[in-house]
Amino acid sequence: MSERGEIGAKTRVCAVIGNPLGHSLSPAIHNAAYAACGLDFVYVAFQTASVEAAAAALRGLDNLAGFSVTIPHKLAIMGQVDEIGDLDRRIGSINTVVKEDGRLVGLGTDGAGALKALRDAGVDAAGRRILMLGAGGAARAIAFTLADQVRPAAIDLLDIDEGALQALAGDLRDGTDTPIHAAVMNDKHLAECMAQADILIHGTPVGMHPKTEATLVPPELFRDGQVVFDIVYNPLHTRLLRDARERGLRIIPGAEMFVNQAVLQFERFTGHSAPVEVMRNVVMENLQS
Amino acid sequence: MSERGEIGAKTRVCAVIGNPLGHSLSPAIHNAAYAACGLDFVYVAFQTASVEAAAAALRGLDNLAGFSVTIPHKLAIMGQVDEIGDLDRRIGSINTVVKEDGRLVGLGTDGAGALKALRDAGVDAAGRRILMLGAGGAARAIAFTLADQVRPAAIDLLDIDEGALQALAGDLRDGTDTPIHAAVMNDKHLAECMAQADILIHGTPVGMHPKTEATLVPPELFRDGQVVFDIVYNPLHTRLLRDARERGLRIIPGAEMFVNQAVLQFERFTGHSAPVEVMRNVVMENLQS
Repeated sequence: MSERGEIGAKTRVCAVIGNPLGHSLSPAIHNAAYAACGLDFVYVAFQTASVEAAAAALRGLDNLAGFSVTIPHKLAIMGQVDEIGDLDRRIGSINTVVKEDGRLVGLGTDGAGALKALRDAGVDAAGRRILMLGAGGAARAIAFTLADQVRPAAIDLLDIDEGALQALAGDLRDGTDTPIHAAVMNDKHLAECMAQADILIHGTPVGMHPKTEATLVPPELFRDGQVVFDIVYNPLHTRLLRDARERGLRIIPGAEMFVNQAVLQFERFTGHSAPVEVMRNVVMENLQS
Repeated sequence: MSERGEIGAKTRVCAVIGNPLGHSLSPAIHNAAYAACGLDFVYVAFQTASVEAAAAALRGLDNLAGFSVTIPHKLAIMGQVDEIGDLDRRIGSINTVVKEDGRLVGLGTDGAGALKALRDAGVDAAGRRILMLGAGGAARAIAFTLADQVRPAAIDLLDIDEGALQALAGDLRDGTDTPIHAAVMNDKHLAECMAQADILIHGTPVGMHPKTEATLVPPELFRDGQVVFDIVYNPLHTRLLRDARERGLRIIPGAEMFVNQAVLQFERFTGHSAPVEVMRNVVMENLQS
């Protein structure tokens, strides 16, 4: 089912919605997965300014099966769906809407995708001290998912945006039992937190293409045994990950989280086990190492 | 651009909307044409009960370029568009909606497709007497288009549904200068009209698969020099066309009109000249001869 010529009246359609939609890997990843599984699905991109129009389309057009949701709609789409799980409500954004029995179900796959990336790398975060850099949307999803589902010893949050930082810290304290420490990002706090962290999760855009030499973490702060997870996936190996690898630390590239969030979407959209290697290969082929 | 794997953020999406959507050739025809022209388009099917949802989707989702419209939405969709040409208003139904500069433009391509089929077959209907069997949607589109654009000597209309018949006759008399004769379909009227007709256009579903031996026209009514056009396209050669061909008459299969209405849609959706032979081949490969 890899040819457009085979699309027919029963073909189910999924799409990424966002605005603007620049280059997006999602169509390539999902379409490769449909082809590998022989599923009669096709995945397209719908740039839209209107979450209302997107929700009306998903409700009204039978063949539409679900949406991946990206910037700037991850919050606004929550007002358009019929059902959102408790954890996703606390996270405060979703990246997926799936139509199930005519109802629109909203969910996030970033947090679960990050957790799966950690587990796939053999990292058990239970009882470990986590340092999260950043308090934006992806950082929120990961911090909440880990606090809710893994019970780390503690999570230290650092961000330069004190509003986002205190909001996330407060929400995490209200919503989970995990000890939460929050501090403004500066050299002193970073050094203190790095001295205690078992797992560093970088959840800001720093180091993203084209500023591939940027990093928040001076290499001298690394310690033996730390795990370094960067949510930035382009380039595949950020400066942070290259520094950590050079120091001999275990690294987890953001591409793993990116693949996993798509894997979890694919499985919700289709009800089928995802061909993970096929999807990972599409990501790897399209990213700079 | 024939692989789903190449679909990206800029890919424009067209679709057929209808309810229910059984087997539809439209995705295969349009996708083959996109591939032949190297256009970054994909054509899908959206079964929907709601013309409002379809219009909201077309307005709100930037990548959506246009819809082919089929049963039961050809009338209701007229209330959802911003602009409809005068001839299409008089016909009273449309089969195409295209988004142009953010406005939804409705139009019909059945009448123009039929006219092109006649012309492609070398038939000039100007000054000729036309017998139209049927007064339904497709018959209306063809009769209005011929009356408006070709100036036949006269159009005779026969149908068993007197309401539809008198409505079409009245609308044609109001809207065009072509002499219109309407009578209930029976053996006597059919024989009288066949004795005068230069061009017979069969515009009812009689003879459509699976009742492929049915025909409204006893072969003894055919006269030398008549042209016989059947809008039924499945099978490719209906009983009516086989009888006419046996009588040595020039025949025009409905597949030609079907190809042409898709050709005209393709050109409105993409702004590109259609690869007519590619589109015809898809139709021919999928129809029983």
